[in-house]
Amino acid sequence: MQIKEKLKELEIELSVPSKALANYLAAKKIGDQVWVSGQLPLVDGKLESQGCLYQEEEELGYKQARQCFLNALSVASSIVELEAIVGVDKITGYVSSSDSFFSQHLVVNGASDVAVEIFGDQGRHVRAAVGVNVLPINASVEVEVVFSISEN
Amino acid sequence: MQIKEKLKELEIELSVPSKALANYLAAKKIGDQVWVSGQLPLVDGKLESQGCLYQEEEELGYKQARQCFLNALSVASSIVELEAIVGVDKITGYVSSSDSFFSQHLVVNGASDVAVEIFGDQGRHVRAAVGVNVLPINASVEVEVVFSISEN
Amino acid sequence: MQIKEKLKELEIELSVPSKALANYLAAKKIGDQVWVSGQLPLVDGKLESQGCLYQEEEELGYKQARQCFLNALSVASSIVELEAIVGVDKITGYVSSSDSFFSQHLVVNGASDVAVEIFGDQGRHVRAAVGVNVLPINASVEVEVVFSISEN
Repeated sequence: MQIKEKLKELEIELSVPSKALANYLAAKKIGDQVWVSGQLPLVDGKLESQGCLYQEEEELGYKQARQCFLNALSVASSIVELEAIVGVDKITGYVSSSDSFFSQHLVVNGASDVAVEIFGDQGRHVRAAVGVNVLPINASVEVEVVFSISEN
Repeated sequence: MQIKEKLKELEIELSVPSKALANYLAAKKIGDQVWVSGQLPLVDGKLESQGCLYQEEEELGYKQARQCFLNALSVASSIVELEAIVGVDKITGYVSSSDSFFSQHLVVNGASDVAVEIFGDQGRHVRAAVGVNVLPINASVEVEVVFSISEN
Repeated sequence: MQIKEKLKELEIELSVPSKALANYLAAKKIGDQVWVSGQLPLVDGKLESQGCLYQEEEELGYKQARQCFLNALSVASSIVELEAIVGVDKITGYVSSSDSFFSQHLVVNGASDVAVEIFGDQGRHVRAAVGVNVLPINASVEVEVVFSISEN
């Protein structure tokens, strides 16, 4: 199935890709990959919540990691055709965490799960999930994605 | 010397490779590299210690970084032949650290040293060592590895 | 303009490249890229300041991120000709941050800006900027860089 149809089926509407706000790029084609800058869980340019995650807040984080991934896909599709994106090679998830929150992996599942929902088996990827004390603009999650693209 | 013999000589027995527990991959072949997901210092599926490292605990962390690397090698060898792995390109070490522990680089040496013990000069790699306040399941160290493989 | 001339024009003098102090490499050629190990803002082998950044210290951090990038360029030019380095593919900036410092992106601009000053449009790159509680030797900033090189 084509990615556009798959997104429709999943009732996912990609946001307008955010632009890099300084001397960097939101995404760059590197060989047969697209590397995407760390994405925050912005919706219409705003964070829906802020601050580090506490115990039992993995569900809140999960949704935000999912949003980060969708923002990364949006950004990637601004430099290559959406249909040229064939899968996901790597996800790095940084989770703003209180010192007693140990479920970063469950948070980053929000990105991993939607990757597989959209791309099927080609959405499976290697990843790292780590905690950090703080993220830019007090976001709770930041996700980097490396997409694989078809070589044509 | 072949890697299997080298491991024998070093009295290293690789564990059964851990499986990805969610919608991701433990390792993925990317060109002539194998990218491995962030590995925790699990031994037989369990952490031997937990929590952030305090001053003068670099030796404890060193052993865990070494274990992370061996787990990464085990995982890599589950998707390509062990003998196809010829060296190490990159290590990223995340060290769960108290605010006054500044020896993350000494901890990550545990991974770097065993990489060179096993692969000799081809085991030398670029790396980053950083502190974080917390890691998944309260692990003390997490290490990502990019291996280089022979192109055959 | 050639990089050497550009550096002169910008009155930038690259330091002697720091050596890896353990079993790793300061930089490694990977295909048509040079991957550089995480660089600290050392000047003549010393940190000019230490500790995590507090609110309104983004300017202090900015200068250090810039220094990290220049150290990365110095290191890269120790394994390939300076003129073979044609641009920047990726910057990862780790910023040692107090729990209420949320401007990691403004700090990492120090690296991004000098990349573009030196390499022009080819200096634009994808990047991630994250906060961490602590870094090796109590540095305030650590920056990893992936440079692109000409294939000759």
